[in-house]
Amino acid sequence: MPAETMEELVSLCKRRGFIFPGSDIYGGLQGTYDYGPLGVELKNNLKAAWWRANVYERDDIEGLDASILTHRLVLFYSGHEATFSDPLVDNRISKKRYRLDHLLKEQKPSVLQALSQAMGLQQDESLAALVSRLLAEPEKAALAMNTARVIDPADGAPGDWTPPRPFNMMFKTQIGPVADEDSYGYLRPETAQGIFINFKNVLDATSRRLPFGVAQIGKAFRNEITPRNFIFRVREFEQMEIEYFVKPGTDEEWHQRWLEARLAWWEAQGIPREQIRVLDVPKEDLSHYSKRTFDLMYNFPTLGFEEIEGIANRSDYDLGSHTKGQAELKIQARVLENHDSTAKLAVQDPETKEWFVPFVIEPSAGVDRGVLAVLSQAYTREKLENGEERIVLKLKPHLAPIKVAVIPLAKNKEEITSYARRLKADLQALGFGRVLYEDTGNIGKAYRRHDEVGTPFCVTVDYDTIGKSQDGSTALQDTVTVRDRDTMQQERVAVKELPQYLLERLKS
Amino acid sequence: MPAETMEELVSLCKRRGFIFPGSDIYGGLQGTYDYGPLGVELKNNLKAAWWRANVYERDDIEGLDASILTHRLVLFYSGHEATFSDPLVDNRISKKRYRLDHLLKEQKPSVLQALSQAMGLQQDESLAALVSRLLAEPEKAALAMNTARVIDPADGAPGDWTPPRPFNMMFKTQIGPVADEDSYGYLRPETAQGIFINFKNVLDATSRRLPFGVAQIGKAFRNEITPRNFIFRVREFEQMEIEYFVKPGTDEEWHQRWLEARLAWWEAQGIPREQIRVLDVPKEDLSHYSKRTFDLMYNFPTLGFEEIEGIANRSDYDLGSHTKGQAELKIQARVLENHDSTAKLAVQDPETKEWFVPFVIEPSAGVDRGVLAVLSQAYTREKLENGEERIVLKLKPHLAPIKVAVIPLAKNKEEITSYARRLKADLQALGFGRVLYEDTGNIGKAYRRHDEVGTPFCVTVDYDTIGKSQDGSTALQDTVTVRDRDTMQQERVAVKELPQYLLERLKS
Repeated sequence: MPAETMEELVSLCKRRGFIFPGSDIYGGLQGTYDYGPLGVELKNNLKAAWWRANVYERDDIEGLDASILTHRLVLFYSGHEATFSDPLVDNRISKKRYRLDHLLKEQKPSVLQALSQAMGLQQDESLAALVSRLLAEPEKAALAMNTARVIDPADGAPGDWTPPRPFNMMFKTQIGPVADEDSYGYLRPETAQGIFINFKNVLDATSRRLPFGVAQIGKAFRNEITPRNFIFRVREFEQMEIEYFVKPGTDEEWHQRWLEARLAWWEAQGIPREQIRVLDVPKEDLSHYSKRTFDLMYNFPTLGFEEIEGIANRSDYDLGSHTKGQAELKIQARVLENHDSTAKLAVQDPETKEWFVPFVIEPSAGVDRGVLAVLSQAYTREKLENGEERIVLKLKPHLAPIKVAVIPLAKNKEEITSYARRLKADLQALGFGRVLYEDTGNIGKAYRRHDEVGTPFCVTVDYDTIGKSQDGSTALQDTVTVRDRDTMQQERVAVKELPQYLLERLKS
Repeated sequence: MPAETMEELVSLCKRRGFIFPGSDIYGGLQGTYDYGPLGVELKNNLKAAWWRANVYERDDIEGLDASILTHRLVLFYSGHEATFSDPLVDNRISKKRYRLDHLLKEQKPSVLQALSQAMGLQQDESLAALVSRLLAEPEKAALAMNTARVIDPADGAPGDWTPPRPFNMMFKTQIGPVADEDSYGYLRPETAQGIFINFKNVLDATSRRLPFGVAQIGKAFRNEITPRNFIFRVREFEQMEIEYFVKPGTDEEWHQRWLEARLAWWEAQGIPREQIRVLDVPKEDLSHYSKRTFDLMYNFPTLGFEEIEGIANRSDYDLGSHTKGQAELKIQARVLENHDSTAKLAVQDPETKEWFVPFVIEPSAGVDRGVLAVLSQAYTREKLENGEERIVLKLKPHLAPIKVAVIPLAKNKEEITSYARRLKADLQALGFGRVLYEDTGNIGKAYRRHDEVGTPFCVTVDYDTIGKSQDGSTALQDTVTVRDRDTMQQERVAVKELPQYLLERLKS
């Protein structure tokens, strides 16, 4: 049974060194988090699993790692300068600032009804439609929000609302020592653009033909108005994105295929299908580039179903936006006229010899949200036979931050500790991930602690191991006790068989 | 023999998909680069080798991954707001802008002599001393530079120079929707600060005792006045940093130990010691936090000896700067009075029970510079027996972007291609890195291409493999040809022995 509340997770994450608030000692920097010793391993393991499944195990995907600082023209032609904004509204009384759609979600149905009516909408229109209408007529909107008595969640009282306005979510920064209008750039709001603008570079270097994809993992930045829900909605986050280029006309089929592939991948990370809802995103909620999008919604504790991945059919919008010679390419999407690009982002049909712009299917997963989902799903409270309770993270072994803890039973017995250190080094050399030499606290506490951080196996080196058992027998020499996280069963295993024993069981 | 010019490397990197200029199709964004399909693998392999050696194979280091966006108070107390700047000077005639120390490096000795004299310096003072003096008296400096006829490298003519001034190299950005003076933060200029401010978090989560370290790999950003030399001096780059905390008094010994450990690590990456000079950085060139620093200088083609890693003794400067309750901690370094920190960044002596601030040894390596050094060292032009020449990247196997290329000899023979695909999948599952199914071009070209990108082994599936040799014999059924990158020798190996064959040889 997964975690019941987000608070349980946040508490575990801080206590055990998974995740800390960013700039913590100065009161924190809202919307930023630091991954601690265990968090960084879990996150790296999740990223490695994604890279392995997509770049290594498929034959149709190349990797890429583009820069975060991005030329403003990239984000002008991509449409982000014009449209990548959230609706912002202020309450003049409380001085609080809200994202309009989030604010509306917290209102009573009767308030929303009154507001819709005042704005001339049908009662059964979506929230997205209401937000668009409010933004389209901001003065009228402010009046309507005040009349409908829209509540400020901070104090529960009706606000005195300003006209709503779009707030661009991109972080801007001056690049180079000259401060003029051409000298700024953006922190990328999605990794995707780095792939689109390198389309020709990748083609030239690899001789790929359609269909093929480019995969990238990296940080992206969005100046969220109100970051919240731990690492779920943050200003700095990491994405795992594939841009999969296909022939127009085959895009819908590939969209479905990628939906299946991605659900299977999440299942392999320990997220069962029944914990994911696939949302076919309504037309009015689609991003500016999307023909159709499936959102994979995981059932988070406290939050409920929220997106961990979007799988979008971006049509020929992006390559079409960034290509030179647009006029000759019969681009289907509506794109800005591009006068600056120096590259033709198109391919030639091998039969008809005609040039065309590929369509793109984009499975775009959030690393941090993935970490949160995996943690949440693995989090288990178990009643033990003795009536006590244990917390255990039932992570898939390939995701566990520590694979094996090697525990010397006596910390002051040199023969035992040196045996344990040697064994740690030997197991570490097998290459399956982090092995910890664990000599803090007693054995029972060590087991509990490793349950809580998801270590699949604890290996104990004791007097029997070094051939000095109490009864003088050497029958158990060069054997160790291996304890299984999930079953709590202990087994005596010969040290020379231990590598094979662990390798088999650590494959998830 | 390593590469002779930087141009050879740049050309290979673009052609084969290692590294492309950032925002390429819009004329580039100076000081940013994108890693292509092979570059991302090489870079990831180098980072993984570092993580393995430091976090996994040692028992005294924990990992961390802190955020890039950083609270301004972190960089105020770290001293970066005040001192992390480069000296900037403009030529009023050419409108060009220079980093003062770089500009002076390009002047004739007689010019420097005249300038030193005009500023009242001894003739044998260092360039760093001259730069400090020029910055200290900017008006006088401008006059002196004009009188000494300091040349503008852009046109070779004497410039009309402005007074030099410090230019802060940190990228600033507004965070959150409110634009006021408290609402900006910085992109971190070094990953180190993320470690210092998490010192207590890590201690609390892991119960570590001195000496121990925290390791981190991540992006850092510096607004270089004149980025140059390919990926050597860039605005966005990646660091691999360890902050190793020790008891004051043991710091000098640990500093030496880390110097040795780091030289050994670079050697394991294929950089022989004789290609590295250790520079004991002169006092006047030390960073504001440093008690002593060793720079590891690699002999780059074209550039000559330049830094790939700095190993600094940062004393108790950083933890001392960021701790609360400074007055009680007998901090040795000169630090700003801290009124904002909420955490005590100190430890208790187990014997005397006295609290003290640990000293820090910091081995800080550049990922991009490391990639460039490794590429440069591996780059080899070889004359072949037939008089032709080949380019081969003699990368250590663990760094090679592609470990094995599986090549079907006939691309249209289904039995051969399906055998090759199966074999690719089987080898991929061994987990040693990327295996490529290679079916472009003929076999000779494939070998050359894989030489050029450093693939240690090419495995060819042919008619013999599928038991259909021309002479009707099945003696070679289920065997393949394995070709070695460095020796160019080919060997016939049984498919069932291939995993062991490759695993042994891919260990570097």
